[in-house]
Amino acid sequence: MQASGVITITTDFGHRGPFVGVMKGRIYSRLATARIVDLTHEILVHWPAEAGFWLARSWQYFPPGTVHVAVVDPGVGTARDIVVASVAGHVFLAPDNGLLAPVVAMDRDAKIVRVETQALARLAITRPSATFHGRDIFAPLAAELAAGRCRPEDLGTVVDTLVPSWVEDASGDDSAVHGIVITLDHFGNLITNIDAPWVVRMGSPRVYAANHSWPLLRTYGDVKPGEYLALVNSFGVVEIARAEQSAAEGLGLSRGAPVVVRDTARLP
Amino acid sequence: MQASGVITITTDFGHRGPFVGVMKGRIYSRLATARIVDLTHEILVHWPAEAGFWLARSWQYFPPGTVHVAVVDPGVGTARDIVVASVAGHVFLAPDNGLLAPVVAMDRDAKIVRVETQALARLAITRPSATFHGRDIFAPLAAELAAGRCRPEDLGTVVDTLVPSWVEDASGDDSAVHGIVITLDHFGNLITNIDAPWVVRMGSPRVYAANHSWPLLRTYGDVKPGEYLALVNSFGVVEIARAEQSAAEGLGLSRGAPVVVRDTARLP
Amino acid sequence: MQASGVITITTDFGHRGPFVGVMKGRIYSRLATARIVDLTHEILVHWPAEAGFWLARSWQYFPPGTVHVAVVDPGVGTARDIVVASVAGHVFLAPDNGLLAPVVAMDRDAKIVRVETQALARLAITRPSATFHGRDIFAPLAAELAAGRCRPEDLGTVVDTLVPSWVEDASGDDSAVHGIVITLDHFGNLITNIDAPWVVRMGSPRVYAANHSWPLLRTYGDVKPGEYLALVNSFGVVEIARAEQSAAEGLGLSRGAPVVVRDTARLP
Repeated sequence: MQASGVITITTDFGHRGPFVGVMKGRIYSRLATARIVDLTHEILVHWPAEAGFWLARSWQYFPPGTVHVAVVDPGVGTARDIVVASVAGHVFLAPDNGLLAPVVAMDRDAKIVRVETQALARLAITRPSATFHGRDIFAPLAAELAAGRCRPEDLGTVVDTLVPSWVEDASGDDSAVHGIVITLDHFGNLITNIDAPWVVRMGSPRVYAANHSWPLLRTYGDVKPGEYLALVNSFGVVEIARAEQSAAEGLGLSRGAPVVVRDTARLP
Repeated sequence: MQASGVITITTDFGHRGPFVGVMKGRIYSRLATARIVDLTHEILVHWPAEAGFWLARSWQYFPPGTVHVAVVDPGVGTARDIVVASVAGHVFLAPDNGLLAPVVAMDRDAKIVRVETQALARLAITRPSATFHGRDIFAPLAAELAAGRCRPEDLGTVVDTLVPSWVEDASGDDSAVHGIVITLDHFGNLITNIDAPWVVRMGSPRVYAANHSWPLLRTYGDVKPGEYLALVNSFGVVEIARAEQSAAEGLGLSRGAPVVVRDTARLP
Repeated sequence: MQASGVITITTDFGHRGPFVGVMKGRIYSRLATARIVDLTHEILVHWPAEAGFWLARSWQYFPPGTVHVAVVDPGVGTARDIVVASVAGHVFLAPDNGLLAPVVAMDRDAKIVRVETQALARLAITRPSATFHGRDIFAPLAAELAAGRCRPEDLGTVVDTLVPSWVEDASGDDSAVHGIVITLDHFGNLITNIDAPWVVRMGSPRVYAANHSWPLLRTYGDVKPGEYLALVNSFGVVEIARAEQSAAEGLGLSRGAPVVVRDTARLP
């Protein structure tokens, strides 16, 4: 892999305090030419599943050789591992808490390495604090990888498996698929973990949530302001929206709410 | 125009999810040396007027040849056009929904081009999603313009007019001018669309809103903490403020509230 | 000092409106190669003490020669001074309102210069607005310093003292130290101004706040989800936290709340 020099950062740190800022300071201290992109810092606190969901659907838009750091890390300072995954020419760095499961699942040839303390020591990444590995380990390690000064395989032992995701994948069959609302956007759109392939093979898919149901449309402007709709969104998953308003507020739904898509052409 | 390599992004996306981040990924994928500035992502959802207001008063602070992308786009995926405007050596890219009206009004020599699908295709910007043109069209197009690899006039047909703004400009005469609160800042200051020239020609201007009125002062420290004041702010428009507190909360006003400035030297 | 080209920005501007964005525009207009890091823009409005607290604990993570700009400036446009401080190879720029006191206290050899209007004029920094010196003075001045085109000592008169901080330092003796909650993070952790050296010399330190008390532990995972704990955090100060929840909400505490650490080995 040829490093692109781009590093993305995904956290649940929000924007209060210098937490993301000092990560960037550590990166620039080791790689002056880094180009750093905030993917989002508003992951639901302590919910790695949302970070993994977005990371798995966002890395494709970055140059090959980008290093993606994700720190949603309720187990910081405990015995949890740090892993680095090489997937389709990109590098991912995260605590081993299920966060990277959806990313690794995208590539049969994904390589996973469990990061070892001795490898960190060789990079002068030592004596981390007990509560902020984002600054003390992830940021400098991302800089070294993005600088091309080390490779994922230099960082430790190749492993076969990761801690699985906290959230089950959508599941079902040709007549119905069950998933959940995995994230909300700023508009209040309810974004599910039900991928497009589940529904494109249905003759007449209909989306069910909160005692309501909607057919799949193409875009928000296909209904009048204030009306609800469902669609396959720009990240390829089923979404429930309300034109020019918030579906989340209108329906009283949030992360974790169950969503079902049924093929009404097959209903009894 | 000599491109500066600087790109500003203005949206109503907020900070939840990777929406702005993937736009930056698309930009870096086409222009590794881009310098990207977030103007703001907290435009009131679906209110292009606020984005246009700020853009018209912010571009002057960027280097000549900067590309400004604004995506407040309730009509995404419908028949609305995308336009690129060349104004005073800067380039502006937005949906044609009134957003750019205040920018274009600043320069008699502004050139407006309606972006055509064939021109996008020549730049390998094809098959956009129906709901996220920020990522699929605006970001790569901004990168091409900022790279100097295409010029606005290469992108389509020159047009004479834009969709007008959703909000009327302030209007009046030498004795009184009527406007609205167009935006709020983080301090709760109420920022109007009444430009300084309306009031500098008044002998004794007084600002009226919500059954109160105030003379124009110079800065917040001119009154005691907790007291209200009006002033011409640093962007050259009339603002209603409350020293060390929020005028918006104190007065119960927000975007859209009517504001009048009268010349009390002329009052009957 | 060799300038690193990195500039950090700390404000109480939040993310609404283009206020931080136009500061960056001014910086890029004078220094195209600047690398700009947002430290945080969510300092409590008009509370310089919080900005100084974070700045004093964050600059160490940036490359030597970094310029740190902090604009929490309730006195903008009044007679307050602007100061530039050289501390341990970094440069700090802020209004003289107590903000920089904790930074300057870290280095006996700190040099403080009061910025003079004539020096600004030589840099073509003239006619600032009365209400936005972040854009009109701080940003261009930071760019000049980061470009290495001027030195702090070129900007005015060396002074001996700064306006003191609005907040008293923690104080006490070997048996008890008194401080306050100076800031909260996004997780609701309550971060105090009690530095580690106060407590490491205690035999059996115990943290008291809001009618409760806790021993010092190492990390959040040392207690069960929902339980409270105290710890010396990754910035070297005493913090009160609640595992996987918000201590601020649970205890009803916020900035300014008193916190005491007692050595229970010495209690009567």
